[in-house]
Amino acid sequence: MLLRPFIALSLLLTSSKALWPLPQHLSTGTTPLRLSPNFQIHLSGVYHPPADLVAAVERTYNYLRTDKLQALVPDRGASSLGAIQNANTLSSLTLSLTPASGKVKSISEEAIADVETRAEGYTLTVLADGSTAVLIANSTLGLFRGLTTFGQLWYELSGYTYTLTAPISITDAPAYPYRGLMLDTARSFFPLADIKRTLDAMSWVKMNTFHWHVVDSQSFPLVVPGFEALSEKGAYNPASVYTPKDVQDVVAYAAARGIDVIAEIDTPGHTSVISKAFPEHIACPEATPWSLYANEPPAGQLRLASPSTISFTADLISAAASMFPSKFFSTGGDEINANCYAKDASTQNDLSSQGKSFEQALDTFTQATHASVHAAGKRVVVWEEMVLAHNVTLRNDTAVMVWISSANVAAVAQKGFKIIHAASDYFYLDCGHGGWVGDNVNGNSWCDPFKTWQKSYSFDPAAGLTETQKGLVLGGQHLLWTEQSNPSNLDSIVWPRAASSAELFWFGPGGDVSKALPRLHDVAYRFIQRGVRAIALQPEWCALRAGACDLFA
Amino acid sequence: MLLRPFIALSLLLTSSKALWPLPQHLSTGTTPLRLSPNFQIHLSGVYHPPADLVAAVERTYNYLRTDKLQALVPDRGASSLGAIQNANTLSSLTLSLTPASGKVKSISEEAIADVETRAEGYTLTVLADGSTAVLIANSTLGLFRGLTTFGQLWYELSGYTYTLTAPISITDAPAYPYRGLMLDTARSFFPLADIKRTLDAMSWVKMNTFHWHVVDSQSFPLVVPGFEALSEKGAYNPASVYTPKDVQDVVAYAAARGIDVIAEIDTPGHTSVISKAFPEHIACPEATPWSLYANEPPAGQLRLASPSTISFTADLISAAASMFPSKFFSTGGDEINANCYAKDASTQNDLSSQGKSFEQALDTFTQATHASVHAAGKRVVVWEEMVLAHNVTLRNDTAVMVWISSANVAAVAQKGFKIIHAASDYFYLDCGHGGWVGDNVNGNSWCDPFKTWQKSYSFDPAAGLTETQKGLVLGGQHLLWTEQSNPSNLDSIVWPRAASSAELFWFGPGGDVSKALPRLHDVAYRFIQRGVRAIALQPEWCALRAGACDLFA
Repeated sequence: MLLRPFIALSLLLTSSKALWPLPQHLSTGTTPLRLSPNFQIHLSGVYHPPADLVAAVERTYNYLRTDKLQALVPDRGASSLGAIQNANTLSSLTLSLTPASGKVKSISEEAIADVETRAEGYTLTVLADGSTAVLIANSTLGLFRGLTTFGQLWYELSGYTYTLTAPISITDAPAYPYRGLMLDTARSFFPLADIKRTLDAMSWVKMNTFHWHVVDSQSFPLVVPGFEALSEKGAYNPASVYTPKDVQDVVAYAAARGIDVIAEIDTPGHTSVISKAFPEHIACPEATPWSLYANEPPAGQLRLASPSTISFTADLISAAASMFPSKFFSTGGDEINANCYAKDASTQNDLSSQGKSFEQALDTFTQATHASVHAAGKRVVVWEEMVLAHNVTLRNDTAVMVWISSANVAAVAQKGFKIIHAASDYFYLDCGHGGWVGDNVNGNSWCDPFKTWQKSYSFDPAAGLTETQKGLVLGGQHLLWTEQSNPSNLDSIVWPRAASSAELFWFGPGGDVSKALPRLHDVAYRFIQRGVRAIALQPEWCALRAGACDLFA
Repeated sequence: MLLRPFIALSLLLTSSKALWPLPQHLSTGTTPLRLSPNFQIHLSGVYHPPADLVAAVERTYNYLRTDKLQALVPDRGASSLGAIQNANTLSSLTLSLTPASGKVKSISEEAIADVETRAEGYTLTVLADGSTAVLIANSTLGLFRGLTTFGQLWYELSGYTYTLTAPISITDAPAYPYRGLMLDTARSFFPLADIKRTLDAMSWVKMNTFHWHVVDSQSFPLVVPGFEALSEKGAYNPASVYTPKDVQDVVAYAAARGIDVIAEIDTPGHTSVISKAFPEHIACPEATPWSLYANEPPAGQLRLASPSTISFTADLISAAASMFPSKFFSTGGDEINANCYAKDASTQNDLSSQGKSFEQALDTFTQATHASVHAAGKRVVVWEEMVLAHNVTLRNDTAVMVWISSANVAAVAQKGFKIIHAASDYFYLDCGHGGWVGDNVNGNSWCDPFKTWQKSYSFDPAAGLTETQKGLVLGGQHLLWTEQSNPSNLDSIVWPRAASSAELFWFGPGGDVSKALPRLHDVAYRFIQRGVRAIALQPEWCALRAGACDLFA
């Protein structure tokens, strides 16, 4: 058989390393290297390593053994078999922890520290002769990020775990401290196994924040101590709840993987379900036609002008906030429906008797709920309306999620608040799946079209901001609202697409989608090997031929 | 606690039976009835029942035992528990076969008969006192359809399998003989388990045709006897193939579930991969930039003017057609790229030496390939271009799939061919998931927007047709092209959405989406119980409250 052109090409392309997110500084060579069958990971200078670091090392071993990710080239690496067989072997990786202070903290402790204080950087060196591989960080969280990178350096062929690009030298740290994923567990309930699988997948691409939109108008699955009636009457069924033990489980699972869990109790809107247990606190509960009272069914909002409702909500938020160790807690604040309150006699009476405008009442309500968050030692997260649509006083350290449009980022920055990018025009995973209102034959997704990975990857976190304002950006996240999702399509809607923001906010903006795509195919194929149902971004023919399915190829 | 309004509502809505597709004639009562713990299914008057009928009865037992589908109402049926406990019990269902001729055929034999000759009708009667349940059909295929319906009559609560709507009387038969689903296994490969699970799901909603777009330009997974080099060189990998034994397995599995498997070898376009094994037969193989030579990469088409290529193709189609017992076989015919041939010196030489125009050559090519299909005792299926864009002679019994636009149906009807609705503007499951070309940051799906179930459900198969032309419509199908699908999202892209065309072509057009939705929720929930990863069409809050999430609720 003739030596066909694609074979030469395949040798070249095998060097497209499956790193995601791309490290800040990466140098590679052209020497094959493979892992020794006796490959080991050593900890250096940590005499009592935290259990979660030891566990992370164990997971790294497992991934190295079970990933079996073949190079995405037409021959899947076969033409390199001889070179791999003759390659030097790497027998160990040494982890070296050089903490700034003497005390060694666990990954879990570091993962839940204030997002602006974490150290996630590391350096990783793998020499071509196999003599040395060293991972250095000044935090266990940094070591964990480096382990994640190390696990992505290798392909598999005929039982060999190899790279063709030694020596490898990486110096890495995130461009933005906040790299998140939001999951809505109120429209649809997701069992713990789904959440944990999602946390694992997030950690593989160095995401560090799970924004848990745990309750909403449709259901209240969170069992909050002292407020058990909310989930007893408001969960979809008795089994579809997250108990305090479940929450501890999720929080611990996440933290051990470098992920902080920010919980949200959205207020005062998106609270219809509270009427099941506490009807006295909800205006316009399940009022019809719903479209007059809410952006989606069922209608219902907290009676924000009622002193007893304010007290109830503040207590609820205190209780819920205390379930989560994160330094952030979200009180929501999106999509407040004015008509619901206008038609609620109780609210109108309260406003009238207090001589307050709606905005004044909202401010009073907000001060009370935010005081609960602050009293728990946390910073508040709100949706953009609390800054742009209303006139409430917010503490300077409040983080604002901009969701309606990326065009609103500058306005939030002008007010001086910290910004978390969550714009529907870039990061909403649910867009494009058609209108879900039952009787709307020609209904499209409100945020059509579908947001491709290319779209979110191309986002500029600093667009429209002054040099000073750029410092307000904490990072950003993909978001999954679950009107049309359940465990059946959780993985397939999220992965590998959400990895695009993971790289954007780790490596920084400006990446080239053409160059990124081969690595993102690797992400998808690796995720499948690890049990996450990532979808195909292109036909496999394209995945095996970098660039061949570009428009301008 | 007060008797809240929704409880009265729930009693009412529990009677929304989970039947899908809706039977032609259905009458129900208001008497609770439950299955006896010793419930049995008897065959009457069939002394040697076909094995596939016996197996279908066994599957029905299993579903009745394992579905455990709770009524989709807020209390999941709990308010009816007393009525269910006190209900009469049904101890048996009797199947009565009254064949038109004396000979009893198996479901499998009947399922693969010419689509215009099959008998799928049945009557089903369940008396309220539990004394009698009878399923009558004059074909085993009809009995199978009736068993499928019987399996949908029941909800589960506290260990009881019950209905609240006895007596039930159903007389049923399909409006259209062809109700299909197309799967492309060339852009992405799907293991047999995925195909079989899909066939099961199809049978649950009485679909009867699996259109297997088995090969395409990207890969050739079909192992064709005498043409093994095609899959050896053209499959994505040696494991990603369908052997003749696999095909027999799929065909038998489908037929036992009332499903005919129509295979397609798309010609002369969509054949790039043939160049891997037979480069002499392919024009412009993998030519770049691909967009000049094909609608998607890789480019490559059969050299349709070459006598040796015509002979090769006719033989390939003979060999492939003989692998499938269906009375239909598709030779494709879509998206022929003129520029590919214009730039192919070999094709231009052939045309020139034969003194033929391109269209004349295409006609010669088509006569040869169609003769192979006819020689195998089958009718040809083609895509619409073979009728509307080209000038080839087709036998009268050719079935034409209209895919580009439903607006083209009338033009096909004017030419007098049989029509299978497959329009991208109603039935393409892949639309709306964004552009997949690698470097196209703002690319949208070419057939945006997403086709909702409501959209396909609202399709009128007779739109624009005269009374006479209406008789040309065989039915229609949903289609999944797999540029952006793999096993990870097969179920979630297809189900429950594709069930909308299953009902459309069984019950007939004109259905009300508002009335259909509660039953379609039942479909999704039942599919999940049976291991098919159907997605949520709405938040569960809506699924439990029929009509509450309509726009005009």
